[in-house]
Amino acid sequence: MSDAAALLAPEELEARLRAIGAERYHSLHPFHRLLHDGKLSRGQVQAWALNRYYYQARIPAKDATLLARLPTPALRREWRRRLVDHDGDGGRPGGVERWLALTDGLGLDRGYVTSLAGLLPATRFAVDAYVDFVRDRSVLEAVASSLTEMFSPAIISERVSGMLRGYPFVDAATLAYFTPRLTQAPQDVAFALDYVKAEARTRAAQESVLAALRFKCDLLWAQLDALHHAYVVPGAPPPGAFRP
Amino acid sequence: MSDAAALLAPEELEARLRAIGAERYHSLHPFHRLLHDGKLSRGQVQAWALNRYYYQARIPAKDATLLARLPTPALRREWRRRLVDHDGDGGRPGGVERWLALTDGLGLDRGYVTSLAGLLPATRFAVDAYVDFVRDRSVLEAVASSLTEMFSPAIISERVSGMLRGYPFVDAATLAYFTPRLTQAPQDVAFALDYVKAEARTRAAQESVLAALRFKCDLLWAQLDALHHAYVVPGAPPPGAFRP
Repeated sequence: MSDAAALLAPEELEARLRAIGAERYHSLHPFHRLLHDGKLSRGQVQAWALNRYYYQARIPAKDATLLARLPTPALRREWRRRLVDHDGDGGRPGGVERWLALTDGLGLDRGYVTSLAGLLPATRFAVDAYVDFVRDRSVLEAVASSLTEMFSPAIISERVSGMLRGYPFVDAATLAYFTPRLTQAPQDVAFALDYVKAEARTRAAQESVLAALRFKCDLLWAQLDALHHAYVVPGAPPPGAFRP
Repeated sequence: MSDAAALLAPEELEARLRAIGAERYHSLHPFHRLLHDGKLSRGQVQAWALNRYYYQARIPAKDATLLARLPTPALRREWRRRLVDHDGDGGRPGGVERWLALTDGLGLDRGYVTSLAGLLPATRFAVDAYVDFVRDRSVLEAVASSLTEMFSPAIISERVSGMLRGYPFVDAATLAYFTPRLTQAPQDVAFALDYVKAEARTRAAQESVLAALRFKCDLLWAQLDALHHAYVVPGAPPPGAFRP
């Protein structure tokens, strides 16, 4: 018990965060294996892009919710960079706009995508839970929940090369969302990881950091479970959802 | 367009509400068919009861959240009855306690059930979305979201007889949760249905009532999708969730 209650060294906290990724990050989900191995139909890839759009579209709300709670100009400036990445600067398109280039490229009607009319309800519940989490939990937990970006460059590289190889209906322009993420994510992580290592000053706080990352992995996983159930296993999407 | 914008007669609003149930209520979900037809293993029934426990446990939070927003003593008394139904009166057990009798009867450890440690994340997201809905939407929409109780007596009758017939590990005492619901639900519905018929005074308000019931059907459906995906189709529960 005294062992369990001892403060972890910062490197040990980081190692435990990485171990959560190795066990729970959605790169391990069967739907991603199918997606990256070129095993999905165009309609199934559309369903993925359509649902993932809602996640992309809510990321600025998530970041603004957290930004509103940060106590210093320096912290807020750091977090504001994420808003620029996702919403653009009026010149270069941001992540939300680039995601719509992906759904365009897949032949989805943009008005239909942004209407959210075909969204799986489970996608909405999981994504909304993320925004609520950064509003309701400690700032430390909110920052920690962003740390899935530690694991995203690997999945993005695999995704881009796998999708280009596997799907004739996908090209580099369609996948342009992902390229800037390869440099943005490590920059985000460098800050957030240093922050949680410095600010989690008790073992309980460190455990809350680990739990926040587990929560975030759970919600990414739940989105793929919902896609897999609606569009891969024999059965049907829930009433009202997109049908390829 | 003028047709679409015309106020519906109260009976027409009720008919449209019932049509939503006929199309989207979770009685139509394949998981319920398996459950009621005795086609699930004990472990699968445990997974259902364990996850549904979280829904039961949050219903008083949902009702208290709505009660806090009701403007008159008469309305609040009406809604308070629901709290008594679910939390008991210190003598007769309420619905939450009766649900734990069900999980006990299925051989689940009560501490494990109430810890929520094995809960599917998707269950948590869907249930939390319900509590948030009654906090964030209009009181009219919040009341309307309770109207799935219009459809519950039929499913409960089918469930109790089907489960008693289909599962040797289930008896009438285990299923005692459901008996009072057969009289409580119609009483709740009588109030809520009259309320939305009287208070939805514009077509837009009536449409919001219909959308609220659709939302509620979606979240019940999403809970069964998650159970079906984790415990019925070949695959596995998400990391960390209950494994029978």
